[in-house]
Amino acid sequence: MNNPLNPHVLISEVGPRDGLQSVKATMPTADKFRWIDALVAAGVREIEVASFVPPKLLPQMADAAEVVRYGKQKAGVTIMALVPNLRGAENALRAGADKLTMPVSASTAHSLANVRRTPLEMVEEVRAIARLRDELAPHVKLEAGISTAFGCTLQGLVPEDDVIRLAAACIEAGADESGLSDTVGYANPAQVRRLFRRLKEEIGDRAGAAHMHNTRGLGLANCLAAWDVGVRTFDSSLGGLGGCPYAPGASGNVVTEDLVFMFEAMGVSTGIDLERIVAARAPLMQGLPGEPVYGMTPDAGLPKGFRLAA
Amino acid sequence: MNNPLNPHVLISEVGPRDGLQSVKATMPTADKFRWIDALVAAGVREIEVASFVPPKLLPQMADAAEVVRYGKQKAGVTIMALVPNLRGAENALRAGADKLTMPVSASTAHSLANVRRTPLEMVEEVRAIARLRDELAPHVKLEAGISTAFGCTLQGLVPEDDVIRLAAACIEAGADESGLSDTVGYANPAQVRRLFRRLKEEIGDRAGAAHMHNTRGLGLANCLAAWDVGVRTFDSSLGGLGGCPYAPGASGNVVTEDLVFMFEAMGVSTGIDLERIVAARAPLMQGLPGEPVYGMTPDAGLPKGFRLAA
Repeated sequence: MNNPLNPHVLISEVGPRDGLQSVKATMPTADKFRWIDALVAAGVREIEVASFVPPKLLPQMADAAEVVRYGKQKAGVTIMALVPNLRGAENALRAGADKLTMPVSASTAHSLANVRRTPLEMVEEVRAIARLRDELAPHVKLEAGISTAFGCTLQGLVPEDDVIRLAAACIEAGADESGLSDTVGYANPAQVRRLFRRLKEEIGDRAGAAHMHNTRGLGLANCLAAWDVGVRTFDSSLGGLGGCPYAPGASGNVVTEDLVFMFEAMGVSTGIDLERIVAARAPLMQGLPGEPVYGMTPDAGLPKGFRLAA
Repeated sequence: MNNPLNPHVLISEVGPRDGLQSVKATMPTADKFRWIDALVAAGVREIEVASFVPPKLLPQMADAAEVVRYGKQKAGVTIMALVPNLRGAENALRAGADKLTMPVSASTAHSLANVRRTPLEMVEEVRAIARLRDELAPHVKLEAGISTAFGCTLQGLVPEDDVIRLAAACIEAGADESGLSDTVGYANPAQVRRLFRRLKEEIGDRAGAAHMHNTRGLGLANCLAAWDVGVRTFDSSLGGLGGCPYAPGASGNVVTEDLVFMFEAMGVSTGIDLERIVAARAPLMQGLPGEPVYGMTPDAGLPKGFRLAA
């Protein structure tokens, strides 16, 4: 059962999208390709490679279509793209993305700041995207990621009922799955367990990924909490690159290297080779000279006698 | 029930001992006093203030007796001292320590490197210390902290049976409680749950603190795992100061500020005020100029609308 060919958890690498869009420098397309190569070589099976937004808003993502097409050559790897609206979805579908992820914020204040629409307007956008997907590429999966699900730097508290209702509305509107994102690093393990349990009660198997940040150091503890209540897909970012450019105070996605170490040490197979995932930092750092990368496992090395979950 | 006057967990601050003995600089005694003042002002109720070792081995601890006597003036605060042997215990008892902690390593290789005795020789030392305590100061509590309980940089794997057997032997020899230490940052949450469950089965209420390190970023996840199986005392270090000078690769105790944030955010009262514990970094940094301090919560600040567990 615990077999690298049939891993227990899916680590969804979001660095090439979430990471790159949050830094000022633009990684050259050729470096993105080398980074994707290294991620795939390490065993990563799902990569969020780009965001389909106007290049004048995020020049880092101007090569989104090209990067999706490159990623598509990798057999057995799901190439994801973030789409903030119908136009972005159309471009992502035409580029050949395997899976779309649409951020839908549970905080009205954050939603307006991020995409200039209310949460309910975003549900209607999900509906329009689902329809377009049905026409253009019915095999493509559509995820609605509920952002600021654990609190918001602008609004503060986000009622749990709002989060669950919004996730259910996205599924009703045609999304295949809905996950919860701690966009600004406010989540705590008790809240993570409570909300993912409620999400599962509400939408069952359509409950999606845990997208945690490490802003206050709780990233891995929150992933553990999500794992405890049955979450099996985890977003993370190599070197902890990332954040949200429109949410003040947001910083630091969960570090892929440390997350993989935690699960493998627990005997939970990720399908990812730890030495190779650490090696995948080289093309990242080459493509973003001087940009800080985070993570403890790469510096500390593996414990003496450590073995991957098998 | 969840009352700051009757907190759910005890955070045992080990920075003045574990932190200070692992840095090269020696903090002046007056700065140690100011640091202890600030910790107590923040609500910390147990502080490991010193190690009773020969000053030629650890000059940072030459003022151990003076620091214990200073700490003793704080009402309602348990003043702990680490003692590696009978002679250290005698000095600590004469200085007036409320509680002694004796490190007993489950790894023979680490035990020899750290105190030049085997684990079984250390159990006999625990017995001698317990006897001395009974004579000199029978109210003083004696803890045996099983170090390298989750693995060792020298020996690699440490069999779980060895750990549990050693903890039981220390209790039999007269220790009041026995906790488990991840001296070199090898622990993972599954192992933490398994070992603390076994410890509780073996020695019941005498199961003591979780002493976790953050070497590979898993410190808080491991504390969460320990909390889940009933551990209610947690060692941590302000600013993450600390490690073990005799265990290569050991670094970084769990950061008190982040640990307190995690529990308080979960609604688990620590009795510690978050703003004041962050303020307690000032005397630490003043007394150790240029020494790096760690922790995410102090930089990120508290979430909007955050309230302490009440």
